[in-house]
Amino acid sequence: MADSPLFQALHMEMAHALCGEGEQEKGLGALEGVGFRVGQGLSERLTKEMPSFKDELDVLKFLCKDLWITVFKKQVDNLRTNHQGTYMLQDNQFLLLSQLSNGKQYLEEAPKFLAFTCGLVKGALSNLGFDSTVTAEVAVMPSSKFQVVIQKS
Amino acid sequence: MADSPLFQALHMEMAHALCGEGEQEKGLGALEGVGFRVGQGLSERLTKEMPSFKDELDVLKFLCKDLWITVFKKQVDNLRTNHQGTYMLQDNQFLLLSQLSNGKQYLEEAPKFLAFTCGLVKGALSNLGFDSTVTAEVAVMPSSKFQVVIQKS
Repeated sequence: MADSPLFQALHMEMAHALCGEGEQEKGLGALEGVGFRVGQGLSERLTKEMPSFKDELDVLKFLCKDLWITVFKKQVDNLRTNHQGTYMLQDNQFLLLSQLSNGKQYLEEAPKFLAFTCGLVKGALSNLGFDSTVTAEVAVMPSSKFQVVIQKS
Repeated sequence: MADSPLFQALHMEMAHALCGEGEQEKGLGALEGVGFRVGQGLSERLTKEMPSFKDELDVLKFLCKDLWITVFKKQVDNLRTNHQGTYMLQDNQFLLLSQLSNGKQYLEEAPKFLAFTCGLVKGALSNLGFDSTVTAEVAVMPSSKFQVVIQKS
């Protein structure tokens, strides 16, 4: 058995445990924090023996490929950028939504299943020296889009 | 990279997020609950294509081997029983403690890193029709013992 069912199950139960009744907002923050620290650690570990990145786009490509495969078992399907620090990562079969069905009530629950990943991306970028804002949206499950805006210092 | 660093990192950050300042007790309960549901699901999945168990000891052996390998990448090192429903599972290199060092302050923190696994064992047993009480102790890190008492109905 691949590890991914364990990761998926752990992530889903963690999301439920942290986002209890009436604690949605605090829970989303906590989930994002967990993702942030996991992202920092994985980025540190994955880049240890890699040549350094030549530019910002190169870093984003690392996220879409190496980090995504490590965590979600596949690459991001589509990466777009305005070449001014804004990136859109699209995953058409996002692992952490793949166990949910496509009912409307699940669309409402989706933020709970995206907060960890927003933090993960932000933490990985932080480890590589970039401050960012990361937001997520779901149009049709289990497809997800993550918007990354790099903060210029 | 094997999946286990991802699982380890996610587990550790989840434990920190759930067991915040002053929320230790509530947090341990929540962690155990997460473990319980993950254990139920994994047990369901792992036993789907297995022949049925011939007795209680056979079920415990499944936990020590199949379940433990799936989650912790190794078997339990030692299984003892009094043949009256009490079992002691000893893991000399317990994965979820392996990143902590052996200081005394970590021994105090150990419950936070064992609650998920107590729930995991309890949930797996519950899925297989056994009610149980599961407790854990650490003597010398990262060695851990889990005591399982099967409740007779």
